Amino acid sequence: MRAVDLIEKKKNGGEHTQEEINFLINGYMNGLVEDYQMSAWLMAVCFKGLTDAETAYLTKSFVDSGEVLDFSEIALHVADKHSTGGVGDKVTLVLAPILASLGIYTAKLSGRGLGFTGGTIDKLESIPNFRCELSKDEFFNQIKNVHVAISSQSPNLTPADGKIYVLRDVTATVDNKSLICASVVSKKIASGATSIVLDVKFGSGAFIKTKEEALELAELMIKTGKLLNRKIDVVISSMEQPLGYNIGNSLEVIESIEFLKGFYGDDLYEVTLALLCKTLKNCGFAYDMTDAKKMMDTVIKDGSALNKFKEIITAQGGNPDVIRDYSLFEIGKNKIEVKALEGGYISKLDAFDVAHCAKLLGAGRDKKSDKIDYGAGAILKKKISDAVNQGETVMELYFNDVDKNKLDDAVAIARNSFKITKIKVDKPVLIF
Amino acid sequence: MRAVDLIEKKKNGGEHTQEEINFLINGYMNGLVEDYQMSAWLMAVCFKGLTDAETAYLTKSFVDSGEVLDFSEIALHVADKHSTGGVGDKVTLVLAPILASLGIYTAKLSGRGLGFTGGTIDKLESIPNFRCELSKDEFFNQIKNVHVAISSQSPNLTPADGKIYVLRDVTATVDNKSLICASVVSKKIASGATSIVLDVKFGSGAFIKTKEEALELAELMIKTGKLLNRKIDVVISSMEQPLGYNIGNSLEVIESIEFLKGFYGDDLYEVTLALLCKTLKNCGFAYDMTDAKKMMDTVIKDGSALNKFKEIITAQGGNPDVIRDYSLFEIGKNKIEVKALEGGYISKLDAFDVAHCAKLLGAGRDKKSDKIDYGAGAILKKKISDAVNQGETVMELYFNDVDKNKLDDAVAIARNSFKITKIKVDKPVLIF
Repeated sequence: MRAVDLIEKKKNGGEHTQEEINFLINGYMNGLVEDYQMSAWLMAVCFKGLTDAETAYLTKSFVDSGEVLDFSEIALHVADKHSTGGVGDKVTLVLAPILASLGIYTAKLSGRGLGFTGGTIDKLESIPNFRCELSKDEFFNQIKNVHVAISSQSPNLTPADGKIYVLRDVTATVDNKSLICASVVSKKIASGATSIVLDVKFGSGAFIKTKEEALELAELMIKTGKLLNRKIDVVISSMEQPLGYNIGNSLEVIESIEFLKGFYGDDLYEVTLALLCKTLKNCGFAYDMTDAKKMMDTVIKDGSALNKFKEIITAQGGNPDVIRDYSLFEIGKNKIEVKALEGGYISKLDAFDVAHCAKLLGAGRDKKSDKIDYGAGAILKKKISDAVNQGETVMELYFNDVDKNKLDDAVAIARNSFKITKIKVDKPVLIF
Repeated sequence: MRAVDLIEKKKNGGEHTQEEINFLINGYMNGLVEDYQMSAWLMAVCFKGLTDAETAYLTKSFVDSGEVLDFSEIALHVADKHSTGGVGDKVTLVLAPILASLGIYTAKLSGRGLGFTGGTIDKLESIPNFRCELSKDEFFNQIKNVHVAISSQSPNLTPADGKIYVLRDVTATVDNKSLICASVVSKKIASGATSIVLDVKFGSGAFIKTKEEALELAELMIKTGKLLNRKIDVVISSMEQPLGYNIGNSLEVIESIEFLKGFYGDDLYEVTLALLCKTLKNCGFAYDMTDAKKMMDTVIKDGSALNKFKEIITAQGGNPDVIRDYSLFEIGKNKIEVKALEGGYISKLDAFDVAHCAKLLGAGRDKKSDKIDYGAGAILKKKISDAVNQGETVMELYFNDVDKNKLDDAVAIARNSFKITKIKVDKPVLIF
């Protein structure tokens, strides 16, 4: 077998066997297939696609390239949840303690933020002394004892996906649904969870732009799970406006704590519940949304979910006092209030723009090596469909030391991120 | 400007500017654009194509990446001729001395053979002591004094094309007409000739398989020449059966010497004349095929073309006695005669098969580092449309030490390369 022949085959629209995919992926890992051959193959895949079977082969090949975690000695069901990335998406921070407080073992490996979407690990690290880089033993022990752990991804899991992801990023080969599916699903399979629920987001603030693409990706992920014998379920949700009210690392953790205290916005509640419901079903715990809602409301009302979050913080070395004292968080010293120039109703609140603004304020990074400012970000005071008076604050921007030009840009982008109309628009549909 | 954005642009069908193409090509040469980005871009080009303007930009960028020869101090017109490659194609060996004996300065830079097509340089090196690696000064001086020189390509000309060609070869991105055009035309422009005539071959023994593709490529090459202010003309010729009777390095030089002595087959004569005619026109020397034919016949009959070939051999250190004594060539010690199993007419004589057979006998190479056997090859005794009796020899195979399995394969391929029918078929059309 030769790499050049496999590239030619895909270029001509041929279908690969598992052996051919393994040859490419293993060859890429051991140096027999070169970077430039892999990127040419990836580009051919962007044009010719992969069949469902090929997508499963690629996913399996990614899984087999590294370690696969196995929790079968700890529990029958271990849940995992993954979002394809969105703005203000702090669902993991509230869902993980809710699941654990309901007795469901939850093993969550997360990434850092890059580009306009935030990462759960960065958010948690805004809690003073919180440690996300758990060893394998620490991760397993915490799941055994606390029923939940949230750790940064180990480089030993799906190393082939890691290496190829870096290549895709610099060769304009990111946006193919099979490549996205294999990347996401392989990581989840290697993470060892028996129940995997994926939140596929689309819209301005997601990297998938249309509902149709999200649907296609969701179907492909479910099929891939079936072909590889894992229970994968998918929620499709809109990312036109940010999820919840706070954007930025410390600010999002605070909103999550508030949520667990019972103070939440509709949208974050709705997405969390949808993901909870699918997870409960996968684990045989609940049968419909009504059951799931009851269970979720109970663990919020009786404080056990909040308590579980406190346990996680404590187990991972963080200061649990943040739960009652938000001043322990770094919050931007400076604040700018962006006000409505006219009265009416918010008709648009662009998630991408808000994320872009927050990134310029220091909340995100362009390169992996960039430092982020945990205290930077935005608090939305209004969301789509809300009434607003002239001069009323639509959003507050928080920041520390930001270059004058960047700050001007950030404020201009924030001003442009929303529109006001005289006629009230409906709240956008969130879950499909 | 970033490489990834330009890859994305081409992937989405966008059109590059000269600046963008320069960024990619210069960046690739100085390390700012990586191998894996260039190969992804090349694959996107294979799917989305390049416009005529982009093809000219790429050609110019290749030319500008290295040295450009300039013969303006030597002559007003300097001719060059190039074939896209075929089996038994020894036109350069006869056309170059014909042109020079007609007083047309001819500067020919050639390559070595790779795959199934032979290279002029390998053929000439089968003449004892013939030197093809001329320095720039030697090349210029010989053109001044002998009016013609044939040298191997200098790595200083179009180095970007050289580097990218190697990459295309291992990433299945060879077969795009714009990439082929830019590669061929840039080399010819950098070689400094004022008149460039290209022989675009198609068929079994060429890497272009259909007449339509050959036509498209020819048109694109002419357009590219116009956009870059060079006189480029094209002959389109068929490569269904080998050109002439001999295939293999020494054997082809012998056929060329015979040609210049006045003993030639129709097809080699026809292609040579067509290329001569276009070159004469480009240089303002002749107006139609009748004029060109007269001139060609004259320099063959009076021996001046043969004498010019002798001068070339002498000037480049070779032994000119080969012209009268073919035993000075290495010829395969062993001979196998492939005979007709039935009588009739040759209806097919597959150029690719004959070349494949000759390569197995040692006449060609797979890798640049492979050694070739100058004495290996085949002599065709019959060509398409010729009558053949049962038991008559169709072709002779010449070889030295060849592995038994390879030899068996070569003979089997030779046997399969031709077909005999009871009804006489016409000679195939050669030039379009």
